[in-house]
Amino acid sequence: MAEKSYEEEHPNKAFGWAARDQSGVLSPFKFSRRSTGEKDVRFKVLFCGICHSDLHMAKNEWGTSMYPLVPGHEIVGEVTEVGSKVEKFKVGDKVGVGCMVGSCHSCDSCNNNLENYCPKMILTYSTKYSDGTTTYGGYSNSMVTDEHFVVRIPDNLPLDAAAPLLCAGITVYSPLRFFNLDKPGMHVGVVGLGGLGHVAVKFAKAMGVKVTVISTSPKKKQEALEHLGADSFLVSRDQDEMQAAKGTMDGVIDTVSAMHPILPLISLLKTQGKLVLVGAPEKPLELPVFPLLMGRKIVGGSCIGGMKETQEMIDFAAKNNITADIEVISMDYVNTAMERLMKTDVRYRFVIDIGNTMKI
Amino acid sequence: MAEKSYEEEHPNKAFGWAARDQSGVLSPFKFSRRSTGEKDVRFKVLFCGICHSDLHMAKNEWGTSMYPLVPGHEIVGEVTEVGSKVEKFKVGDKVGVGCMVGSCHSCDSCNNNLENYCPKMILTYSTKYSDGTTTYGGYSNSMVTDEHFVVRIPDNLPLDAAAPLLCAGITVYSPLRFFNLDKPGMHVGVVGLGGLGHVAVKFAKAMGVKVTVISTSPKKKQEALEHLGADSFLVSRDQDEMQAAKGTMDGVIDTVSAMHPILPLISLLKTQGKLVLVGAPEKPLELPVFPLLMGRKIVGGSCIGGMKETQEMIDFAAKNNITADIEVISMDYVNTAMERLMKTDVRYRFVIDIGNTMKI
Repeated sequence: MAEKSYEEEHPNKAFGWAARDQSGVLSPFKFSRRSTGEKDVRFKVLFCGICHSDLHMAKNEWGTSMYPLVPGHEIVGEVTEVGSKVEKFKVGDKVGVGCMVGSCHSCDSCNNNLENYCPKMILTYSTKYSDGTTTYGGYSNSMVTDEHFVVRIPDNLPLDAAAPLLCAGITVYSPLRFFNLDKPGMHVGVVGLGGLGHVAVKFAKAMGVKVTVISTSPKKKQEALEHLGADSFLVSRDQDEMQAAKGTMDGVIDTVSAMHPILPLISLLKTQGKLVLVGAPEKPLELPVFPLLMGRKIVGGSCIGGMKETQEMIDFAAKNNITADIEVISMDYVNTAMERLMKTDVRYRFVIDIGNTMKI
Repeated sequence: MAEKSYEEEHPNKAFGWAARDQSGVLSPFKFSRRSTGEKDVRFKVLFCGICHSDLHMAKNEWGTSMYPLVPGHEIVGEVTEVGSKVEKFKVGDKVGVGCMVGSCHSCDSCNNNLENYCPKMILTYSTKYSDGTTTYGGYSNSMVTDEHFVVRIPDNLPLDAAAPLLCAGITVYSPLRFFNLDKPGMHVGVVGLGGLGHVAVKFAKAMGVKVTVISTSPKKKQEALEHLGADSFLVSRDQDEMQAAKGTMDGVIDTVSAMHPILPLISLLKTQGKLVLVGAPEKPLELPVFPLLMGRKIVGGSCIGGMKETQEMIDFAAKNNITADIEVISMDYVNTAMERLMKTDVRYRFVIDIGNTMKI
């Protein structure tokens, strides 16, 4: 399609920032959004978090990107229009959209509120929607989304710091619940103190769990203990510390997406402990089998969460005053932010102030 | 110790076959067993299965062997004497001993009937017992074992074909139960049709589960379907067959201890499916992370079972007429049997007729 035709594909004008090629550089992009369908919620985007996947996708590092590509799947805003059959939302409501905007609604996963595992799940951007057009994400001034994939943001949550909960938040909340690592008194390790890890610490603490942060970087210790409220801190390269902590954890949430050894993490687990991976290294990790057998341990994976659970997560966050630690940026800072993100130079999530800084 | 001193270490003469060095060659060995302690059960060994670990241990392939080494942890026999405080057994009872003969009785695992995961668990052979002496296994004419580690063999089970249940049987029964792969109507894959795999098929079928055998060897198809009663058969190297079975299984019990790819097995799993490894390859396997995340799948390990569950397994086997398919051999055939075992030339378990063929 010529650029012009993106503006005419749908009846409603929209504006955003898009990557045009594998350079991943983002620039202003005029496109269009569909009319508000009978089950659709239209909302003005106010804030959008920058997830590390946005960077991967902008650069087509997973090979699935379709350009022009408007990233963003940690989107919050205010409802401006609802379709005739929308039941849960009205104009003026504060809402959010996370990583997905559609699913088949008929498979086992969908029937069990696990749309995130539906084989036909439609991602919020760079995926073909059910009408055949491409989905565009939240680095844009408006969204139109089936209400099933919209969550309500409770009044007491600040919208900017709530945005990252829609991906980073649910990604760590869901495995804590599903793998039964949410019981008071349990001991859970969190590997990696980034966008996901820092929220994992907050959720686990709110569940009454004892939390140990495991990081390659000793300089994060003070932050982890004093600011985030972790109970203890392990430097993963310190063999004495790691040895002393062997067999003490009920579970470990591993947020690291770089290649890394998992044997030291398996060793931290008690008998029947669970190592849950939520980061996705590109190449296979080395899985030592004996240590799994000898303690009936498991290594599992988890990917975001279903819509019902995402609403539960947001409500739990609101009740416990949990938000992400963020650095709010203006839209035209996004390429610099991406560069800083590559160097993990952010504490802990960039959030774009779309409402106030996106100039058409 | 000089050979003579093994005979004098304990008050009761015993006789068995032992490996003397890494050649793994077994030969007659005079040693001794402790007196019957107040909680001990003494029994005349009648049959002992040959587990693949016996071969590894005889050759010190895991680096933990102590010579002379009397292998054997699939041991059945008849009680000849019981200690004053023994409550569960009397002279004449048919009993069995599996992979372990002791544990700490005070750790979390022991308190939860999981002596098999006790850090101080004492193996049936080639391990230091609580009195400081070395344990000797079932390739011998007698055993003396704390009654806690003795199971009752129900009358309707033939002793020879029941022997392999004590290791091979519990090794596959326990994960079917623990990982909830025992519900009627479920679909479970069994990888590898050897000593463990063939019993896994029988247990899973008795639980009402649909069973698919997955094997590298097409020639095992007829045997799997017609003789063992599996519902279907997949040749793991046949990509079309494997592709067609993608996403159809609730779980897979993987009995293979050689290096092998697990991605094809993970692909067979439904969302939230479980791949359970019960064989232990010496080197780490390759663990692809994306496929775990995308279906909240797990890879777990399992190692034999606790004593309570071992008795349950034997009782379940008795109720459902489950035994191992065996080739009964005489004691002096053991070295030939070991050579055949190395070539997997056995259908499916060798059992030594100790009672009738061990000549002192």
